[in-house]
Formats: sequence, C-alpha cells, structure tokens
Amino acid sequence: MAPVTNWLKAEDFDGARRLVAPQVHRTPFLSFRTLGRATGTSCWLKCENLQKTGSFKVRGALNAIASLDRAEAARQVVTVSAGNHAQAVAWAARRAGARAVVVMPEGASRSKVAAAGGYGAEVVLSGTAAEAFREALRLADEEGLTFLHPFDAEPVIAGHGSTGLEMAEDLRGEAAIVVPVGGGGQIAGIAGALAAAGRLSGRGRMRVFGVEPEGAPSMRRSLDAGRAATLADTRTIADGLAPPMAGELNYRYVAEFVEDVVLVSDEEILSAMRLLLTRAKIVAEPSGAAAVAALMWGRVPVSPGEAAVALVSGGNADDDMVVRALREGARWP
Amino acid sequence: MAPVTNWLKAEDFDGARRLVAPQVHRTPFLSFRTLGRATGTSCWLKCENLQKTGSFKVRGALNAIASLDRAEAARQVVTVSAGNHAQAVAWAARRAGARAVVVMPEGASRSKVAAAGGYGAEVVLSGTAAEAFREALRLADEEGLTFLHPFDAEPVIAGHGSTGLEMAEDLRGEAAIVVPVGGGGQIAGIAGALAAAGRLSGRGRMRVFGVEPEGAPSMRRSLDAGRAATLADTRTIADGLAPPMAGELNYRYVAEFVEDVVLVSDEEILSAMRLLLTRAKIVAEPSGAAAVAALMWGRVPVSPGEAAVALVSGGNADDDMVVRALREGARWP
Repeated sequence: MAPVTNWLKAEDFDGARRLVAPQVHRTPFLSFRTLGRATGTSCWLKCENLQKTGSFKVRGALNAIASLDRAEAARQVVTVSAGNHAQAVAWAARRAGARAVVVMPEGASRSKVAAAGGYGAEVVLSGTAAEAFREALRLADEEGLTFLHPFDAEPVIAGHGSTGLEMAEDLRGEAAIVVPVGGGGQIAGIAGALAAAGRLSGRGRMRVFGVEPEGAPSMRRSLDAGRAATLADTRTIADGLAPPMAGELNYRYVAEFVEDVVLVSDEEILSAMRLLLTRAKIVAEPSGAAAVAALMWGRVPVSPGEAAVALVSGGNADDDMVVRALREGARWP
Repeated sequence: MAPVTNWLKAEDFDGARRLVAPQVHRTPFLSFRTLGRATGTSCWLKCENLQKTGSFKVRGALNAIASLDRAEAARQVVTVSAGNHAQAVAWAARRAGARAVVVMPEGASRSKVAAAGGYGAEVVLSGTAAEAFREALRLADEEGLTFLHPFDAEPVIAGHGSTGLEMAEDLRGEAAIVVPVGGGGQIAGIAGALAAAGRLSGRGRMRVFGVEPEGAPSMRRSLDAGRAATLADTRTIADGLAPPMAGELNYRYVAEFVEDVVLVSDEEILSAMRLLLTRAKIVAEPSGAAAVAALMWGRVPVSPGEAAVALVSGGNADDDMVVRALREGARWP
C-alpha cells in the first residue's frame, strides 16, 4: 500500500516563499513568440537561468539551510550534486555563515566545479553520480556533517514552490507548465505549491508536465513502475537531470499532481539550446533547455487557448557546450 | 554660431512612450553583481537584447512610422542600417501595413540580413555603410519612398526616450547610465528624456555616458570638434556602432545632456561578450556589449554611492561571433 503523504500546505509554501524571495531574483517571465509556432498558442520562458548562481537551485538550498536547527547548522553541511545544487548550497551556506562540503562526480562540468569552489565550498570529486552520493553520505556519517539531500526533502520542495507561485501570478489564463526533471525536487515544489494554492483546477487552471532526457528517465520509469525508480546508469548531456534515482517523496508529488512526464533526446536538447541562444538571446545549459525542447518537438499536448510555459532551469553551460549547440544543434523549425 | 535647438519636452517623450510601450517589452533590468567588482558599486543591465527583434531599435522605428502622415506611409518607406534598425523598421512597417525597403551594407551580418527579410522587408545590399546611405537616399528620391533616418530624427529620439524613462523608474538612487553610441539616436533619446523629466540633477541624479568603439569614434570626434563629425572609414566588430557619421541633432543632445563619451577596443568588447555569456547568461552582440566593456575596463568614472547601469542594446550576434567571444574573449577580472 502506498504510504500516506502529508502534502505541504499553502501556508508551508507561502512561508518558504517569504524566506526565499527577498534573497533571490524574481526571474524574468519572457514571451517567446518563436516557440509559439510549435504550440499555436502563446509561449513564455521562466528564466531561472538568470537566477542567482545561474540556476533555480538556490531556492531550495536557502530554505533547506534555514530549516536546520542551530546545532545542525553549526555542525556544518555536506551535499552531493552534478553542479547546480553544489553552487547553490555553497552560496547559501556562505550567506548563513556555515561550512559546506560538496561532493561532485568526477565528470562534473569544469565551470560548475570552479563556481562551487568560488562560492566558498570545499569540493570533493568522487566517481560516478551514484558513487558521489555514497561518498557524501559517508562524509556525513564519519565527519558528523549534516547531509542536505539535493532534491528529496520537504524544505527543498517548499523552496522550489516559490517559482510556481511566481508563475501563477504572472499568468492570467490556463497554462501548461513544462518543468525539467532530475530528482524531481523542482517539479514537486511547483506542482505541490500550485495544488495547495488551488491552481490545478477551475478558471486559470495550470497543468504541470515534466520532461526528462531519454538517457535518464528516472521519473518516467517511476510512474510506469508505480514507485520511485533507480537507474543502473544514465547517459545524457543534461548533467543536471541525471541523478541515479527519482526522489521518493518527489515521486509521490509527481504521481499525484503532475499530468505526465515526457522524454526528449540530447539532439533535441541541443537544438533547443541553439534556439534559445539565437532567438531568445539567453544561455541555457542542456538541462535548462529540456522544457523548450519538449515544446519544440511536440511532446507536450498543449490545448488550444492554453499558454505554454517552459521553465529554463539553469544557464551554467561550459563554453564547449555552447559552441556545440551553435555548431551541431538542428535549426528549427 | 550653434543652432538653437528646440529640445523635445517631457510631454513629447511621454507621448512617444505611450505609443511605443504597449507594443514592445518592458525589458528586464537585472542586477549583475560580477560587474560590480569593477565599480565597487551596484551594477545593473538594461536588457534591450531581449527586446522584440533583438534590439532597442523597435522603439524608435515604431514611433517614426507612427509619426508619418497617412500619405507618406502609403508612399512606403526606405531606410539604411547595418542590421538592427533594418529589422526594426521591417517589423514595425509590417505591423503598420506599410511596405519597407531596407538598404544594408554588403558586409552586413548574415543573420541580420536574413532577419530583416524574414520580417517582410525588401533588402537591398549596397557597398559600404556610406554607400548604402547614398543608395537609400537615391531610392527615396527616384522611387518616391519616404526616407526614415535610422537615428537623426526627432521621432526616433523620442521613441528611444522610453528606455530612459523605464530605467528612471527602476532606479532609486543616483546612477551612471552607460549607453552604446552609433549615430547617437538612443543616447540622445535617453539623455533627452531624463533631462526633460528633471532627472539629470538633484536627488537620484542620473548621469549619462556614451561609449564608442575605438575604430568608429564619430561622437567622440564630434565633441572634440564642436560639431557633428563624419568619419572617413570605420573598423570595428561592433557593426551597429559604425555608421559613418554622428547625427547632427543627436550631437546637440549629447553635447548638452551627456557627461562624456568614452572608447573601448574590439578586444574589450569580446571580453564583455564573454562575461555576459558566461556570468549573466545572456547573448549580446558586439555593439550590445560595449557599455559592459566600458565598465569592466574602468572607462567610466562611477562615483561611490552611484549605481552603474550598462545598456545592453542588442543581441543579434552571428553564431561565429558568439564562438569567437567564447574562444578569444579575455577572461575577467
């Protein structure tokens, strides 16, 4: 039997937003007419690539660190991340005066490793994504650090809800919101906050869709299996969407509040990066371009009259990846 | 003796803004902490690269076409541009149901030529910038088209004032605003609108600085000579800042209302493009990155307590130029 979930309530999301919002950007919400050709409706970009540290992750990290009791914070924190959460925790820990250790896989983006160090974290490189996870847990255990889960924890979900509440204010009519999914913390927060605010039904109804790379479909597999799935391996250019498992708690939010989770290929992601660079004039990393890819390539069944929103979740792309998107990304339409 | 100038008044700028604003984006005004290291103060980006057609030029073009009488508009328009004004006129003419012919120099950016055609203009390629100017005047004369000056005309100046009024609302305290200068239409509009609104002195005083490429210093030469100067030739990667002359009227606005005009090299512009791509996560074309370059390299004497604002005027960079900025742009700081 599925566990009973005590969903976060509107006051939980509102409280997290009050804590997070003054410390982060209310990111631009830009109309993107070119993408509207794919859906026949109005299209918008929620630009978390323009967020502090270059990704949405600061919202969850700030709320997670604020939720520690004083003794835990003093005991110092450790986390694991392909990069964006590492930067966000480093940044948020420095603001809180806490020590942060971040474990990153050895293949992590060079610019993300440099940035996490630049924000003051102690960076440990360790094996694959799964091995880095185990190393972070070992450090927590052996060195008495508080483990901050990168995605599967209520304070993280509550922090990410703030993005959903901002979009709900920016939109008037019905909308399909497309959110990239790695471990699922962001989509759980957005869908959970919209559900708690009563925005998933009635007038101005918002539907939430997830998108994953074909090479890292942990949430798609979870929905198909009826429980949070672990992947034996992942293979995608979207490093931020490739944790080796879906979060247990996040899976329950997705199963309850999300319409569907769709897949895109790495080639489609490169093409979306190219479109964002050349037409929207913004830099998205591969993970950050996945929602645009899903809309470009018709993976999300947007209804007539429904606006389409692509969450551009991060912009921390290595130079080589930007060059590759310009050189190899398919022109569209 | 210098001619007496009837400066545009606050009601002229307000009227132009009422016409322009509903048709364009109120572009994001983003804090950019990295750049603040150069000035020791807060730094902001006014993102006209995220404007419709990818540059600020739509503001002037819309107001210029709206100012035509019905017979002139029916007679159809011709203009000359390295690219951004061409796109803007093409876009604005289509909205107004008018025919637009745009003359562009043969060396114009391929993406700008394609975009102007894509917005429905008839594109004529003709020689150098100076030769393209003459060709546009010839077409106006021989084919009975109305010549829209790309920068040196009151309706253009009034339209560009809207950007200044938006920044004045977004800023609380004193600020140094840095604006790229080609023919000078944008800086004339911004400085003129701020002057008319009483924002160049007193509490919350805003100072306006211009920036030009070392290889196309038409306004700098004009200030030094005491009259609008023509350049024998120009050489810069910032195609949008390289018309062969400063506008007569624009020169008078700059001499009256602008603090100073400074110069940057093409290498400094590439480095600024790189910084914007990698840290601000936005795409600027060379012309659009010039103000950031001026702040990075200490060319603007920002005072303590004064915010610094870089106007990022356009984002229509060819792929090769983006790659070049990533590959060759000097890392900073």
